[in-house]
Amino acid sequence: MAKQHRALLTRQELIRSAAEVFDSAGYAEASIATISSRAGVSNGALHFHFKNKRALGEAVEQIAAQILLRLTGRVPLRHPSPLQLLVDTSHVLARGLRDDPVLRAGFGLGGDPTWQSDVKLWEQWQDWVQLMLTVARDQGSLAPQVAVEETAFAIVAVVAGIDALNRTGAEWDARHAVTRYWRLVLPQLSTEAAREQLNPEGTAAEEVWSQKWDMAEACGDAA
Amino acid sequence: MAKQHRALLTRQELIRSAAEVFDSAGYAEASIATISSRAGVSNGALHFHFKNKRALGEAVEQIAAQILLRLTGRVPLRHPSPLQLLVDTSHVLARGLRDDPVLRAGFGLGGDPTWQSDVKLWEQWQDWVQLMLTVARDQGSLAPQVAVEETAFAIVAVVAGIDALNRTGAEWDARHAVTRYWRLVLPQLSTEAAREQLNPEGTAAEEVWSQKWDMAEACGDAA
Repeated sequence: MAKQHRALLTRQELIRSAAEVFDSAGYAEASIATISSRAGVSNGALHFHFKNKRALGEAVEQIAAQILLRLTGRVPLRHPSPLQLLVDTSHVLARGLRDDPVLRAGFGLGGDPTWQSDVKLWEQWQDWVQLMLTVARDQGSLAPQVAVEETAFAIVAVVAGIDALNRTGAEWDARHAVTRYWRLVLPQLSTEAAREQLNPEGTAAEEVWSQKWDMAEACGDAA
Repeated sequence: MAKQHRALLTRQELIRSAAEVFDSAGYAEASIATISSRAGVSNGALHFHFKNKRALGEAVEQIAAQILLRLTGRVPLRHPSPLQLLVDTSHVLARGLRDDPVLRAGFGLGGDPTWQSDVKLWEQWQDWVQLMLTVARDQGSLAPQVAVEETAFAIVAVVAGIDALNRTGAEWDARHAVTRYWRLVLPQLSTEAAREQLNPEGTAAEEVWSQKWDMAEACGDAA
């Protein structure tokens, strides 16, 4: 059991290390030797866990998909404020893309020309956004003129854009970027009755973050 | 003169070829041999024009910056509809990022972890957007509650996001993505008087495109 636990920790450390190297060097330039030494393990130990660099890339993407699933959660059909949940979750995702190396690298691989796979993290996020808007519509808080699919795309695009701008390394004030977006869009999106209750800064994002965020747990599931 | 002209054409062909290879393989993986053979010239001819791969990358970024400058034009202080010009120009830029290999690769290098430079194309675009919003404010067509800097960031982020999603190779309906965004945001952005006149689909984008778009000319300036 202790041995199994140690193996799991090593595996997690390797995935995190691979994520950081993919993120800073790109997939093609990432070297197995750098990944293992950054994780503090031997090349042999790395190969015990992962056949090759491709297997590490797949693990990073898979964990990122699981983290995303944890952040969004299931679509709650009877949530009291689906639009607020959408705002809150977009804040959490933007923060995760900035701060969590595995989530960041997983999304990064999707846009890396030297990486090919069937995992589509942005589509997974878009599906969730679209369902939340549908729930808001059913529940009467979405303004009648709003087209669900079009709006979902615009929301996905802005989060992807904040992520892309962060990756250019420019001095963007990305911290409040999500708030800015919602401040602009929420008045248009919600019915007048729902509008009063909505907070573009997100509610309790810190708590959501610390509750939902458990990379070790996500890795445990995948191991 | 004929010889000079041929040299210029070769140079243009090499820049375009480099852009395509950077875009599909990433900067680090792009090979000089692939770039020269794609351009239909010898390695020697390539090295006559460009010292190394780095010089090709710099040329691509420089031309992309010039194309962007051509697309945006100067900031017109007395434009009759600065918001419509902003809408139109964002359509043209999104189209350019999809269809023009040099513009696309130039912006792509900015987000490529294996490429470092001081050229910041997204910042160049943001400065222009922010100035256009300032012109709109001075001219009275911007809604009073709109914060110029915050709004500029949101506009830049959405164009960057559409570009990022395109690069994931997913089947996004990016064609109408810009229109969707403006449909959502324009009612919030403009005064009621200005709103009636605004077209989120962009006006005369096709003409703007064909008039402003002259890669050969841009390359000529840079040569």
